[in-house]
Amino acid sequence: MKPTVVRNIRRPDPDVVRRLGVQGVATVHEAQTRTGLMRPYMRPIYTSARLAAPAVTVHCAPGDNLMIHAAVEVCKPGDVLVVTTFSECTDGFFGDLLATSLRAHGVVGLIIDAGVRDVADLTAMDFPVWSKAISAQGTVKATPGWVNTSVVCAGAIVNPGDVIVADIDGVVVVPRDLAAAVAELGEARVAKEEVSRAAYKAGALGVERMGLRAKLKELGVEYVDGEV
Amino acid sequence: MKPTVVRNIRRPDPDVVRRLGVQGVATVHEAQTRTGLMRPYMRPIYTSARLAAPAVTVHCAPGDNLMIHAAVEVCKPGDVLVVTTFSECTDGFFGDLLATSLRAHGVVGLIIDAGVRDVADLTAMDFPVWSKAISAQGTVKATPGWVNTSVVCAGAIVNPGDVIVADIDGVVVVPRDLAAAVAELGEARVAKEEVSRAAYKAGALGVERMGLRAKLKELGVEYVDGEV
Amino acid sequence: MKPTVVRNIRRPDPDVVRRLGVQGVATVHEAQTRTGLMRPYMRPIYTSARLAAPAVTVHCAPGDNLMIHAAVEVCKPGDVLVVTTFSECTDGFFGDLLATSLRAHGVVGLIIDAGVRDVADLTAMDFPVWSKAISAQGTVKATPGWVNTSVVCAGAIVNPGDVIVADIDGVVVVPRDLAAAVAELGEARVAKEEVSRAAYKAGALGVERMGLRAKLKELGVEYVDGEV
Amino acid sequence: MKPTVVRNIRRPDPDVVRRLGVQGVATVHEAQTRTGLMRPYMRPIYTSARLAAPAVTVHCAPGDNLMIHAAVEVCKPGDVLVVTTFSECTDGFFGDLLATSLRAHGVVGLIIDAGVRDVADLTAMDFPVWSKAISAQGTVKATPGWVNTSVVCAGAIVNPGDVIVADIDGVVVVPRDLAAAVAELGEARVAKEEVSRAAYKAGALGVERMGLRAKLKELGVEYVDGEV
Amino acid sequence: MKPTVVRNIRRPDPDVVRRLGVQGVATVHEAQTRTGLMRPYMRPIYTSARLAAPAVTVHCAPGDNLMIHAAVEVCKPGDVLVVTTFSECTDGFFGDLLATSLRAHGVVGLIIDAGVRDVADLTAMDFPVWSKAISAQGTVKATPGWVNTSVVCAGAIVNPGDVIVADIDGVVVVPRDLAAAVAELGEARVAKEEVSRAAYKAGALGVERMGLRAKLKELGVEYVDGEV
Amino acid sequence: MKPTVVRNIRRPDPDVVRRLGVQGVATVHEAQTRTGLMRPYMRPIYTSARLAAPAVTVHCAPGDNLMIHAAVEVCKPGDVLVVTTFSECTDGFFGDLLATSLRAHGVVGLIIDAGVRDVADLTAMDFPVWSKAISAQGTVKATPGWVNTSVVCAGAIVNPGDVIVADIDGVVVVPRDLAAAVAELGEARVAKEEVSRAAYKAGALGVERMGLRAKLKELGVEYVDGEV
Repeated sequence: MKPTVVRNIRRPDPDVVRRLGVQGVATVHEAQTRTGLMRPYMRPIYTSARLAAPAVTVHCAPGDNLMIHAAVEVCKPGDVLVVTTFSECTDGFFGDLLATSLRAHGVVGLIIDAGVRDVADLTAMDFPVWSKAISAQGTVKATPGWVNTSVVCAGAIVNPGDVIVADIDGVVVVPRDLAAAVAELGEARVAKEEVSRAAYKAGALGVERMGLRAKLKELGVEYVDGEV
Repeated sequence: MKPTVVRNIRRPDPDVVRRLGVQGVATVHEAQTRTGLMRPYMRPIYTSARLAAPAVTVHCAPGDNLMIHAAVEVCKPGDVLVVTTFSECTDGFFGDLLATSLRAHGVVGLIIDAGVRDVADLTAMDFPVWSKAISAQGTVKATPGWVNTSVVCAGAIVNPGDVIVADIDGVVVVPRDLAAAVAELGEARVAKEEVSRAAYKAGALGVERMGLRAKLKELGVEYVDGEV
Repeated sequence: MKPTVVRNIRRPDPDVVRRLGVQGVATVHEAQTRTGLMRPYMRPIYTSARLAAPAVTVHCAPGDNLMIHAAVEVCKPGDVLVVTTFSECTDGFFGDLLATSLRAHGVVGLIIDAGVRDVADLTAMDFPVWSKAISAQGTVKATPGWVNTSVVCAGAIVNPGDVIVADIDGVVVVPRDLAAAVAELGEARVAKEEVSRAAYKAGALGVERMGLRAKLKELGVEYVDGEV
Repeated sequence: MKPTVVRNIRRPDPDVVRRLGVQGVATVHEAQTRTGLMRPYMRPIYTSARLAAPAVTVHCAPGDNLMIHAAVEVCKPGDVLVVTTFSECTDGFFGDLLATSLRAHGVVGLIIDAGVRDVADLTAMDFPVWSKAISAQGTVKATPGWVNTSVVCAGAIVNPGDVIVADIDGVVVVPRDLAAAVAELGEARVAKEEVSRAAYKAGALGVERMGLRAKLKELGVEYVDGEV
Repeated sequence: MKPTVVRNIRRPDPDVVRRLGVQGVATVHEAQTRTGLMRPYMRPIYTSARLAAPAVTVHCAPGDNLMIHAAVEVCKPGDVLVVTTFSECTDGFFGDLLATSLRAHGVVGLIIDAGVRDVADLTAMDFPVWSKAISAQGTVKATPGWVNTSVVCAGAIVNPGDVIVADIDGVVVVPRDLAAAVAELGEARVAKEEVSRAAYKAGALGVERMGLRAKLKELGVEYVDGEV
Repeated sequence: MKPTVVRNIRRPDPDVVRRLGVQGVATVHEAQTRTGLMRPYMRPIYTSARLAAPAVTVHCAPGDNLMIHAAVEVCKPGDVLVVTTFSECTDGFFGDLLATSLRAHGVVGLIIDAGVRDVADLTAMDFPVWSKAISAQGTVKATPGWVNTSVVCAGAIVNPGDVIVADIDGVVVVPRDLAAAVAELGEARVAKEEVSRAAYKAGALGVERMGLRAKLKELGVEYVDGEV
């Protein structure tokens, strides 16, 4: 309960993280039975933003970014910062100075259930951010919070060291201990989708490939001819 | 009332559809006396998206895309799919596999009062989509619905075979039987706007061109000098 | 209280306006002690939009753009139009014809707490707009309002002649009589940030540069080792 | 397309309307296979509000209640007014004077996808209203619209003469020509629910009464013992 | 710009305040030509809440109620506190202890563009509050702000000493120096409405009493007979 | 990951639950250092609703209440059901039949991050519900989910057996293993607040009781005399 900074966290296998990143959000989300997705209001600040990385979590008071500053030194190269607030807030907790500092420590991006600013600079730096808002509203440094404890970010539970996969489709959280299994399932799904894509390209019907005609019939869907 | 797929619908004259597409959403909306516009939360997934096409309508349960699959085979080349849900939902009902399948059957785009995913792929395919949300959240195929019945999509009534015109300004619905008349009115409006544009470029004032000085006077608007 | 058009307003020093524009929204907002920012729902219609200019204010009825037309002739080259409505409205009050007219009179952009349309044309013209919505919904010209009186736009007070600074981070209002002082403070801030940026790039920690270690201790934040 | 007032409409059988009113919104909505429900943001201004009545529809410009005034004389005793706007608006289109006038003509309530005011007076009069907002914001009488044409109200299609059923659970629309059939289905449902209620009161389990154990098994739901 | 507490403010004539309170929000808002209304998301915590009082304004950081505490001693009996935040926030800035303290100093209620808590106690005390949210989320006391400066509250400008009128229809702000004139106009309106009410009760039509038939004709509204 | 029903959970000490219930939401939330509060959009369906109980958690597909039915038989007398959905949904997952069934098994209330219906019946039964929406929209029983696993409900993590405290101020979650400690802290707070309340009633100032004068000075807040 006391405000705390946890210095060390267990991180997932970097190769598993890399493989999840290749798959992207939609595939990973399906691979772990459609769990772990953040709310769709989390949007990237530029369309090509894409990352996969272990989470360092930060829990801040609304309008107060003190704990982001406290988090910098516990990050390791390859990490992503995941920032939440005690209550809903759109302030700009983060800008190009913090991005410069985090990049100097190897951090690869930011997921924040609040606002960011200096978006032109962050885009020029190619520092990817997913946020709820873009806002220049500055924050203070006056209230304690937490680094590297379990948080809820945009509706999803994030534990420190969980894998964050993010792209233009949103942000998904893979629990660290399931990451290897999910990566494997995701690759199987990619392979299967490749086959489906070829079939659909050739004109195949989903209702046939997936056996949905029987389902539609069982559910009582009627087929009728319309006016012509 | 029973879940139904209507196989055949009457479609508008393709040349009328083409002419409406040239005019774009704002002009068409004005031409039909400012009716038929969907709510402005419907946004294209990329800025150059633009289409005009007859609607095949789909009505799905929230979180369930079964009826989109059922709709594929009733589409004809040149159609656009218009998808609504029984209650508000942001799930990702549609992704690149369905887009591949629809394109193989000649469908030119999607209007969905819900979410889509695989947005990077859809953009690369240049498959235009207007949606309420971008979300990787997957859907099931378990609940019956309707294909080609009247629906309300983002606040507008859409009947099967109505013309959908969509661009960066939003989405407008033109009732099939009014399409030719609206196309004509829209062309007249385009011509008239061309003249206005030239006049405004040359410095003309709208209050004079449109006779608004008298209106402002009648409404009691006072003109005063401020501090200088 | 009576509907009024104020013809002349005092404008700020053009060089001060230019200097504020160079600094951008986030810096200016900080320089005036974090005041004057509009709500973050105000977004530019294209990402490179950027301006600094004195405000001509317009207060319209919902769904009625009569007073925008009345405002055109009181604008001077270099001004920006700031449009608000009596109650919340997303209609498209403004399109390419009005933009053409305003540009012919030297107006450099639009801030509107409502909707705009013809966004493709406005973008092609490089006419910058910050708005709450993009909507093709047309408006009437039937209800009186105000030009060049104090208004609330997206949560911020705007007086005629105040400086509007707008970019991808949002929109901030600088009171005319404070503009020179704010410009100076902003320049000092830019210089200071340059030094900070270099330090952070070299790996410096914010907790040390800003003396936050003592603060964190005083606030009772505990440091613990996690599992490894 | 032209602004129009339709003077006469066909109304449903009053006894059918009465029977639907007895059943209430949730039952009627189920009876017509879960269609016709307005969005849940439509709330009664007081908790005991309840009605069933044929709809007279009104379509207004935002911030303009002219057409409500035009609608009064086409109402018949027992009708309910259903008011929508061209675009989203929360203004107070309606207050105690209009309620007094409508009541004098026998109108039994109001459904409005916008705002109302004089709520204390309306409550004291026991004049039931379902609305999107409570707002004192006054409206003008300047823009033409429609009375007794098809409208979309809070996401549901309403044709003049359709039956509106409204209570604390919301508002549902029953197409006039289906009203008798729906009333019959609703009564069957009420009877069936009475039996279910008694069974549940006695401790019966829904999973057994509705045969859901097999469903859960088929769907692969596992039962496990937790920690104790 | 510096954080400031202004100790003394000019207050309006108490009798004018009382007269405005008798008229209520809708009438006062009309009397001052439909200006000064707060956004309709401001709702009373209980339906019988009603007040008219001079405003003491407070401007707080999000999640920080320090300045409310600072404001208590500058209040005079009969005042109402009007609280806003630097950016949008729903935290519970205010509960029964602050209400007890304010009441001990004669303060008659609270208008807050944020959240409140202890709502059961506030209701039992009959301490009226209009707020954006009900939330138990506690706040800190760490960030400076302002007391008795101009603020924007829920979209309306409030200057210290302005008259706040609030009831179930919302909250309206009357500029102190216009209060007497508005009170007079409001009383005239009440008298006029009394006559209208009697006429409507007797069956008079608004289209006739207000001369709207001519307006409808001029606007091109057609009257047609429907199906019967 | 597989859909699962966990039959047995560890529950907290009933006396601790009872003590937390006496304190109410605002006090409990403060006692556990302002953590565990659900978002303020969770509102009771009637104002006197109040409960404290161990949570049985349910995770449903949007528009599908199958797992609520599956949960009934794992509830014990005194439990509260906490229901969440895979993605945001306002459908009416729950009505008077389910309430009757749950009450027969001793369940004392419902917390649901979605909609409920039959609100008049639930109120008459005095069955307390906190929900995001009231909606008659029915749901299906077709998709598997989870009972008694960790869920995120309205932004708060809920583990099975955690204590839910809910009243008119909202809903707070107390982790089962912290419940006794929080109850003790809450009681100390209640006692302390009693003293504060008496002092404030007697006219004491918070700035003095809490030593905020020094804080305000340290933060640079200036006191000035205004116009009189």
